[in-house]
Amino acid sequence: MKENDIQRPTLIINEEQARANIKRMADKARNAGVRFRPHFKTHQSALVGQWFKDQGVSSITVSSYSMAAYFADHGWNDITIAFPINLRELDAIQELASRIELGVLVDSSATVSALEKQISRPMRVWLKIDTGYGRSGVHWDQTEQIIQLARQLNEVSHLTFRGLLTHAGHSYHVRGSEAIQAVYRESTQRLQSVRTVLLDEGFRTVELSTGDTPCCSVVYDFADVDEIRPGNFVYYDLMQTQIGSCSDGQVAVTVACPVVGIHPDRSEIIIYGGGVHLSKDSVELEGHRVYGCLAEMDGNAIITIRRDAPVTGLSQEHGVIHVPSDILNSLQVGDLVYIVPAHSCMAVNCLRR
Amino acid sequence: MKENDIQRPTLIINEEQARANIKRMADKARNAGVRFRPHFKTHQSALVGQWFKDQGVSSITVSSYSMAAYFADHGWNDITIAFPINLRELDAIQELASRIELGVLVDSSATVSALEKQISRPMRVWLKIDTGYGRSGVHWDQTEQIIQLARQLNEVSHLTFRGLLTHAGHSYHVRGSEAIQAVYRESTQRLQSVRTVLLDEGFRTVELSTGDTPCCSVVYDFADVDEIRPGNFVYYDLMQTQIGSCSDGQVAVTVACPVVGIHPDRSEIIIYGGGVHLSKDSVELEGHRVYGCLAEMDGNAIITIRRDAPVTGLSQEHGVIHVPSDILNSLQVGDLVYIVPAHSCMAVNCLRR
Repeated sequence: MKENDIQRPTLIINEEQARANIKRMADKARNAGVRFRPHFKTHQSALVGQWFKDQGVSSITVSSYSMAAYFADHGWNDITIAFPINLRELDAIQELASRIELGVLVDSSATVSALEKQISRPMRVWLKIDTGYGRSGVHWDQTEQIIQLARQLNEVSHLTFRGLLTHAGHSYHVRGSEAIQAVYRESTQRLQSVRTVLLDEGFRTVELSTGDTPCCSVVYDFADVDEIRPGNFVYYDLMQTQIGSCSDGQVAVTVACPVVGIHPDRSEIIIYGGGVHLSKDSVELEGHRVYGCLAEMDGNAIITIRRDAPVTGLSQEHGVIHVPSDILNSLQVGDLVYIVPAHSCMAVNCLRR
Repeated sequence: MKENDIQRPTLIINEEQARANIKRMADKARNAGVRFRPHFKTHQSALVGQWFKDQGVSSITVSSYSMAAYFADHGWNDITIAFPINLRELDAIQELASRIELGVLVDSSATVSALEKQISRPMRVWLKIDTGYGRSGVHWDQTEQIIQLARQLNEVSHLTFRGLLTHAGHSYHVRGSEAIQAVYRESTQRLQSVRTVLLDEGFRTVELSTGDTPCCSVVYDFADVDEIRPGNFVYYDLMQTQIGSCSDGQVAVTVACPVVGIHPDRSEIIIYGGGVHLSKDSVELEGHRVYGCLAEMDGNAIITIRRDAPVTGLSQEHGVIHVPSDILNSLQVGDLVYIVPAHSCMAVNCLRR
């Protein structure tokens, strides 16, 4: 899209950089000998999915039945729904499982019982393990519960117990490559310790699946797992640059926003671009909560992320950017500015309609 | 929709309560003798628009050209776009102005110059005044600038200078009826002082337009203004109950979410309902940032907002709710829970697709 044609807040994807991000991660997985099952919740786009296919990707991850159905309709036939299975969608999930290789997640006995009663199609089941993030999954040290769940799964003929899956989302809480790698090591060791217990109990095959963009970005040796599932890395975002997962130049997404107000007295500009466009996800920057930063661009490519020009406020449709004088003096009402969103998954979800 | 049919995060509107909220505000405006121009950005729905028509509403407010075009296509022909006019949409805005009575906002000389050059259709123009919120508009004490802008507008034959418009959004930062009323009084006095200056300068008609849900909810005497533009009040939300704009029972919106995980050890449940459903807008509750609270329901009506069961975390698709033991013990995986969102405008925008 030409800049002159942009009238409203518009998602700008740097295809070349996104393809480079995909290639880099696909190469890393290949070199490490692990399955690459990228998470498609970030882009939710059949078009972008093709960029992954071009790198030989054939298995994917999503976070809802709806996304799984969308990608199945676009030719993907090996999909894991990396979300605790929603018992209210079992009929639809079962129908999908009759069409493609479908993997689902469980973390409770009640759920396995429901699957046993209500599902008759073959389905691969992963046990979701909480290795420290504290959201979903059985806590890794609840060994007895994990063994029981695995046994319960093995007793249901149409369910295949595939292995242990984790999302080490606490990697988002640390900063810098070393700290991220420490999260990866600890999380993976915990996953392995559970696998060892299960193998000792007589289980034959217990795969390990892990995946979060910070860890998968800075770790190269994935020898200890069978599968990685990062998603955000396709575009990265301001949050990932702050965590230390990527460089500014690797960020492949911005949101082009019209300038609708200039307030030199407050060193602020007002953009058409609010919470319904960027989402209200935020990241801490020098002690302040910001929703994004202005970027200097060369076409669709980011040259510099201007951390001295943060988005400090978002209403439904308005954004407020605090800007230094060089930016203030260069802008007029009606100009476009480009915002690197705090969290690309959320901003893309807002703007992909 | 029957509860058994709900499979995914679903917006639940209590029509009876929403209609009562509309009637109450319409009655207040009528009794006060001011024009009621409700903001439709909260619901963005032609169906809900009909509920306003049923109360005699014929003039509305929106916050984007896109919304204005949508409602124009649904029979509304008196619309103000209460957002600094976006110069990149002038062609479309002009086309719309040829079909309906369109009001727009300006707050800079550069914008008026652009309108003068590029617009030929009649348009009503409001000067946006900042009465203390600090987002858009000319600051109320910049009298010279305001006079110049009004003169500049009067010199453009196809533009009609309609008056002064403000959004006292800082009413969201206070708590309790008295504090909200103080915001209203101060904001309105500032608007009036600007009007007095303009009348002294020879301007004939200078209408005053104000509108924010907290002020319009607790103020009854609107004698000092000509028009009110609240929007959120149609549904209200958790934020408005905390501000003191409404009672819990007046909240007309919840989001039904399937329970996908129960973690008694952490007193937490996991729901299918994340940032893409509830938005990541939050409100402070007893010192903590929360994204909503669980509600006890009677059909679509809220009986009690359980502030002891707050949504403490939101990922893209997951929500984490901290729950007391009575709720924990009553729930099973696969049940539905109802969440009062922190900010209904944002949650409705997420879920209205």
